[in-house]
Amino acid sequence: MIPRYARPEMTAIWSPETRFRIWFEIEAHACDAQADLGVIPRENAEAVWKAKDVRFDVARIDEIEAVTRHDVIAFLTHLAEHIGSDQARFVHQGMTSSDVLDTTLNVQLVRAADILLADMDKVLDALKRRAHEHKDTVRIGRSHGIHAEPTTMGLTFARFYAEMARGRARLERARHEVATGAISGAVGTFANIDPAVEEHVCARMGLRPEPISTQIIPRDRHAMFFATLGVIASSIENIAIEIRHMQRTEVLEAEEFFSPGQKGSSAMPHKRNPVLTENLTGLARLIRMAVIPAMENVALWHERDISHSSVERGIAPDATITLDFALNRLAGVIDKLVIYPENMLANMNRFKGLVMSQRVLLALTQAGVSREDAYRLVQRNAMKVWEEGKDFKQELLADPEVTSVLEPARIEEQFDLGYHTRHVDRIFARVFESDPL
Amino acid sequence: MIPRYARPEMTAIWSPETRFRIWFEIEAHACDAQADLGVIPRENAEAVWKAKDVRFDVARIDEIEAVTRHDVIAFLTHLAEHIGSDQARFVHQGMTSSDVLDTTLNVQLVRAADILLADMDKVLDALKRRAHEHKDTVRIGRSHGIHAEPTTMGLTFARFYAEMARGRARLERARHEVATGAISGAVGTFANIDPAVEEHVCARMGLRPEPISTQIIPRDRHAMFFATLGVIASSIENIAIEIRHMQRTEVLEAEEFFSPGQKGSSAMPHKRNPVLTENLTGLARLIRMAVIPAMENVALWHERDISHSSVERGIAPDATITLDFALNRLAGVIDKLVIYPENMLANMNRFKGLVMSQRVLLALTQAGVSREDAYRLVQRNAMKVWEEGKDFKQELLADPEVTSVLEPARIEEQFDLGYHTRHVDRIFARVFESDPL
Amino acid sequence: MIPRYARPEMTAIWSPETRFRIWFEIEAHACDAQADLGVIPRENAEAVWKAKDVRFDVARIDEIEAVTRHDVIAFLTHLAEHIGSDQARFVHQGMTSSDVLDTTLNVQLVRAADILLADMDKVLDALKRRAHEHKDTVRIGRSHGIHAEPTTMGLTFARFYAEMARGRARLERARHEVATGAISGAVGTFANIDPAVEEHVCARMGLRPEPISTQIIPRDRHAMFFATLGVIASSIENIAIEIRHMQRTEVLEAEEFFSPGQKGSSAMPHKRNPVLTENLTGLARLIRMAVIPAMENVALWHERDISHSSVERGIAPDATITLDFALNRLAGVIDKLVIYPENMLANMNRFKGLVMSQRVLLALTQAGVSREDAYRLVQRNAMKVWEEGKDFKQELLADPEVTSVLEPARIEEQFDLGYHTRHVDRIFARVFESDPL
Amino acid sequence: MIPRYARPEMTAIWSPETRFRIWFEIEAHACDAQADLGVIPRENAEAVWKAKDVRFDVARIDEIEAVTRHDVIAFLTHLAEHIGSDQARFVHQGMTSSDVLDTTLNVQLVRAADILLADMDKVLDALKRRAHEHKDTVRIGRSHGIHAEPTTMGLTFARFYAEMARGRARLERARHEVATGAISGAVGTFANIDPAVEEHVCARMGLRPEPISTQIIPRDRHAMFFATLGVIASSIENIAIEIRHMQRTEVLEAEEFFSPGQKGSSAMPHKRNPVLTENLTGLARLIRMAVIPAMENVALWHERDISHSSVERGIAPDATITLDFALNRLAGVIDKLVIYPENMLANMNRFKGLVMSQRVLLALTQAGVSREDAYRLVQRNAMKVWEEGKDFKQELLADPEVTSVLEPARIEEQFDLGYHTRHVDRIFARVFESDPL
Repeated sequence: MIPRYARPEMTAIWSPETRFRIWFEIEAHACDAQADLGVIPRENAEAVWKAKDVRFDVARIDEIEAVTRHDVIAFLTHLAEHIGSDQARFVHQGMTSSDVLDTTLNVQLVRAADILLADMDKVLDALKRRAHEHKDTVRIGRSHGIHAEPTTMGLTFARFYAEMARGRARLERARHEVATGAISGAVGTFANIDPAVEEHVCARMGLRPEPISTQIIPRDRHAMFFATLGVIASSIENIAIEIRHMQRTEVLEAEEFFSPGQKGSSAMPHKRNPVLTENLTGLARLIRMAVIPAMENVALWHERDISHSSVERGIAPDATITLDFALNRLAGVIDKLVIYPENMLANMNRFKGLVMSQRVLLALTQAGVSREDAYRLVQRNAMKVWEEGKDFKQELLADPEVTSVLEPARIEEQFDLGYHTRHVDRIFARVFESDPL
Repeated sequence: MIPRYARPEMTAIWSPETRFRIWFEIEAHACDAQADLGVIPRENAEAVWKAKDVRFDVARIDEIEAVTRHDVIAFLTHLAEHIGSDQARFVHQGMTSSDVLDTTLNVQLVRAADILLADMDKVLDALKRRAHEHKDTVRIGRSHGIHAEPTTMGLTFARFYAEMARGRARLERARHEVATGAISGAVGTFANIDPAVEEHVCARMGLRPEPISTQIIPRDRHAMFFATLGVIASSIENIAIEIRHMQRTEVLEAEEFFSPGQKGSSAMPHKRNPVLTENLTGLARLIRMAVIPAMENVALWHERDISHSSVERGIAPDATITLDFALNRLAGVIDKLVIYPENMLANMNRFKGLVMSQRVLLALTQAGVSREDAYRLVQRNAMKVWEEGKDFKQELLADPEVTSVLEPARIEEQFDLGYHTRHVDRIFARVFESDPL
Repeated sequence: MIPRYARPEMTAIWSPETRFRIWFEIEAHACDAQADLGVIPRENAEAVWKAKDVRFDVARIDEIEAVTRHDVIAFLTHLAEHIGSDQARFVHQGMTSSDVLDTTLNVQLVRAADILLADMDKVLDALKRRAHEHKDTVRIGRSHGIHAEPTTMGLTFARFYAEMARGRARLERARHEVATGAISGAVGTFANIDPAVEEHVCARMGLRPEPISTQIIPRDRHAMFFATLGVIASSIENIAIEIRHMQRTEVLEAEEFFSPGQKGSSAMPHKRNPVLTENLTGLARLIRMAVIPAMENVALWHERDISHSSVERGIAPDATITLDFALNRLAGVIDKLVIYPENMLANMNRFKGLVMSQRVLLALTQAGVSREDAYRLVQRNAMKVWEEGKDFKQELLADPEVTSVLEPARIEEQFDLGYHTRHVDRIFARVFESDPL
Repeated sequence: MIPRYARPEMTAIWSPETRFRIWFEIEAHACDAQADLGVIPRENAEAVWKAKDVRFDVARIDEIEAVTRHDVIAFLTHLAEHIGSDQARFVHQGMTSSDVLDTTLNVQLVRAADILLADMDKVLDALKRRAHEHKDTVRIGRSHGIHAEPTTMGLTFARFYAEMARGRARLERARHEVATGAISGAVGTFANIDPAVEEHVCARMGLRPEPISTQIIPRDRHAMFFATLGVIASSIENIAIEIRHMQRTEVLEAEEFFSPGQKGSSAMPHKRNPVLTENLTGLARLIRMAVIPAMENVALWHERDISHSSVERGIAPDATITLDFALNRLAGVIDKLVIYPENMLANMNRFKGLVMSQRVLLALTQAGVSREDAYRLVQRNAMKVWEEGKDFKQELLADPEVTSVLEPARIEEQFDLGYHTRHVDRIFARVFESDPL
């Protein structure tokens, strides 16, 4: 976790305090279920809830762990300090540490996913608003970095919206996948604990019982979760790269917002760096790097080995905290992105009208000119634009061989931008009014 | 693609012949739609179907491409050789190469997914059958590679079934995600082609129209697809590792099938190597390596750059062909896996009864012995097993301090394996009778 | 291996013919050494060389392997068909298949590295030539995609040269690392074969004996090899990205070479796509994806498991063939890259002289103006350039407050590009006349 | 950074205090060099050193950064608070932030590498000692997890030594590669600063001048650094996997050290889990995950984009801290690993003598028995071992057809373990007395 790329709400999920709180809840709910089953006295189960409002003392637990060398035992010892060791003696009965640890991890991942879903909503809101704002703001579409045909800035925002909406839908699924808990004992056979305990604890913690666990919850669920974060990160990178391109000096179709009071660049007004989107590009790599280790974590030995644990201590907080930060940064960037429609037009007209050469070619052939002749006509006028800086439309209008087949009005028509934007509403309907996946 | 790890049906999807066939179908359906719209003459649309049964000549198309340096143009030129260049002149009108290429890729991925789903069914069938066959075959559960408590071989198969069933459900979603097509023109604005063409072509090719495309279909869909394959591969590795452990000389609880006629090892009957599952372990790495490049492919420049293309020429066939092979190999391995229940029992009893020490401890405390005393009693008898090779149950029965609190029958009870298997049916019901995800 | 991204010389290294040829040589040299030791008759060793000029029949070997299910045995059987089974009976004595397979892999990797080193020399030659050609071709340096200060195109080429030279030096080391062979028997103890055989075979095959092998040569060597290819691939991507940026419509400082006869774009002269460097960007991802599996291959079970084998069947040919292709393509791109110095100047002067604002600021403070005042003076003139399109130098010359502290000649001096290029020779000396690492 | 997997010395390298300290030194040395050149007054350069013993106030710098939004400016402002803003006014002259930041990163990486090299020495010392201790401790060699032929525990340690020694040699190279600094100004042209400053600063900071930098030091150097850490991590995993296998219940040839006072397992003496090596397996994944992002960092836009920065804020501390921890843990594990030679013998003799079947086969053929007959003789006796638990040697001695060609003494000879260990000294000489690479 890199402090400057972390937000408090998400960071809190991964704090020792939160972890101990979840452990407590799992143990307390398990005691309730055990009392329901008559396995432990009701009184002892109720006694556990005395610690309901305790803020567990992390330093003290660490101190105990230094002796016991076992985190769950250290916690249970500390818990007994609060509720009395006699009352505490049925806590954790029939359970293994993994029952607590794995269920807790999934509670944390579910909570993290909920924050991320809300983050994505912010990004989606911003994208949707900007898409509608610039629905008809014409700019040049580019393939290979080279001008192709006109499109609109709204379509650019709309496609990022569609991509992020898919990401959100995937994240909901990934959240669902890790929303399982297990209280199944040493190797998952429920030998020392009734499945009813698992059912009760899971229901209270907002989880489903894992249909079949060993000592642990199977890690393909987590691999899918982190893979999903990796795809979302890649979509963030996709948007970031677009904005970085738009802001580069020669293009300047947009800029990350610069507060008027922001120091520094008025002596070099051209020097406003897209540092937020560059940062997002890097953060995407950081999030994505969790994917392969998460997959390597799937193949554990027999009913469990603990190699996955250190990996998850790293990637679970890091990937969720970083993605949370990145999504929020992205929402802000999109929300306040400064768009320069006039520069978009200027860029599009850089080679005066040349971008319409394809359409003119088509118009000529449709007017009955052979493909070869149409090509020759377009080419000779295009070259004057390219080499002499002439205006393509004017050249065509001045070329008698062209005007003999295409009336001036027909030539003018080919340069009508409305031609390129007439399906925008239809595309918007597809994007904003249908299911994302 | 590594020939020895490839099956013909999947390989065929990625052959030039199949690719050209799909290109043909897309172009022909597009012509139909254009004729419906009145954009091109019906007669020309119909003429295209004359090539319906043509097996396109790959060598000839390559020859043309060597001149035109453009694969789609080469194909269209060759197509014209079949249907006559006059009839062919409306083919591809208003489309870009990417319309054909991207739609084709998704058709191929969908078909590949269909094969993979059928493959997974084979794996699931084998796992289910073996799970029920060995539902009550007791073996020792292991955590950290160390004996823990008893479980059953059926539970092992059942958890692999549950994991693979999740993988299958994810693959269905991934298949759905890439089941889109796009016929939207140079930058996705439908400037030169009506959206109705896209709708018609997609319907005929078993796809949905991509809600918003640029020149290309967005690559987050494909990233998710390959990430899903990566998770499935990791689950294959998980099963493979289990089997490799079971087959190692000191464990020998199972062996990959060895046909009786199979040459070689009878002079060294201990030397039957789990080469198939070792191979699967390696194949999992090969499949997984497609994940990161697929994610790196998401962030393309503006409306498209073509950097994704070479990556997909590699990973699309390679990952699907390798996974298809691996799933089939895995189905065979599971189907014919030779299980040694007697060795399972022998392994479990390696430290005569010691595996039950936890239960005895619990029984003693439940019988009123203090935790400290119970621990001492268990320990002193356990040590005789560990150091002198004694039998744990016999030692307990001979220890008056133990028998003073636990009757012999109660002691015997603790060694009843039925205790560990009594929830197997309930777990099986969860696994085999509920939704996988 | 993707045929269109493969060159015959590198592909040949990975053909079955080459593999069998290397197997033959290893076996034949081993027989010589065994004869030297008196372990086998000299006559039998000599007889093996009868097959010296045989081109082994791959189909026949495959046929035998279909029966024996063992590739090395199949080969030996076929070899015996050439030299007589009686003469052949001492071939392979005391060796394991892995002795042949692992030594062969390293021979192949060494040969592949030799081709790659030659490829890198081509890239280096092209970069060096272009660096000197454009040593003083001034262009704007950019940070964050935004204009910063002037640099030269020669420096750009020179830094790519320095990076590739480092890559080449690393590849030499990686080549050295895999240049080992092992003929050490079943678990590496030389129990059935004298170390002298290994020494002889290695010497003849251009390898060093692996100091300690098990059944196999340790895979950290190979992990380092593929990691090195991954870094080189990343440097290729670095160059490719630069060129793609230079070619984008709004920048147009360079273009990939377009042969005058090349079809297609004269009607759209702006539409020359940097498809080669986009392709290189994708190929870099393909090469890089070998790195993680190669690292996952290091941890094998005990003296060997065969999980690495399938991985290497994929990545060894794929990564080397793709890198060979990429380096050659890159050399061609650099060699023929069309540079537009006039566009470089035009881009630099896009905001007429504004790029020199920093220098003017410095000159003012050095002339005794306070930092605040200097900033104010620069800013008010900069803003006229930015907002009204004025020329920065002219505005400064017309600003009496500026000219009161800076004489016109001093102002002119600040716009002298020579200021930025005066250390180029020194940097060139560092790059081209010193050790790369 | 995961606190529980971090050691203070390495963590300190990445603290803000250390970073600011290095910044200070770079700035102070740069001032000296500028004074030498006569660019700034000597007095001002000397004044900077007044802060020589200052422990910079991180909170105060953060406070300033909150306003300036620029870390280097915040630091310089704070520095001026110590040495007086008048004296401080020449600090940083002609430099860019990246000159400081990139040079600092490399100083940190060099220091981290020095710690890691010392760590590796600890690992190497332990491996060497244990190798010699168990040079002749015979154990079974295994391929595919299946018993093959005898080897020794010393050879196992020796091969890990050789692998780690290679890793160390690679790390020295990687350290050398990142031991460069750059003080070259905005785009690397030295426009505003003389190269002599760079030379002076680098010499003082233990670095070489980067031959050609842009705004930044090229990232292929860092990619190679992290790739090297990834290979070392994979070698750690290799050793960890071996130990985990040795400790599994059925094998039990070694155990991680368990202090006699260590709580917990004496009631279950079989339950000593190899948690340290399982942890190392996971840590290896964490370290390795830095490799791909480091490679993705190489291709930056033009003279720099800042996408690499966030990545490095994560991976530079995380990968070095984790590897430092892992190497120390590994050294401890190896140092104290409990070896069970008697279990090694017991495992080897599991199938009484069967492991020698290959040698007997060879002895028979060398005694003139045809290959087919020899095979038949071995097989029929082997089967009695496999199926009836007989002793292979005794069966052979009792088989008249065998004894008719092999005298009892010859048969005994085939079971002599010295045969397998006679080249150990020679291998040790290769490993411990020669160059690692």
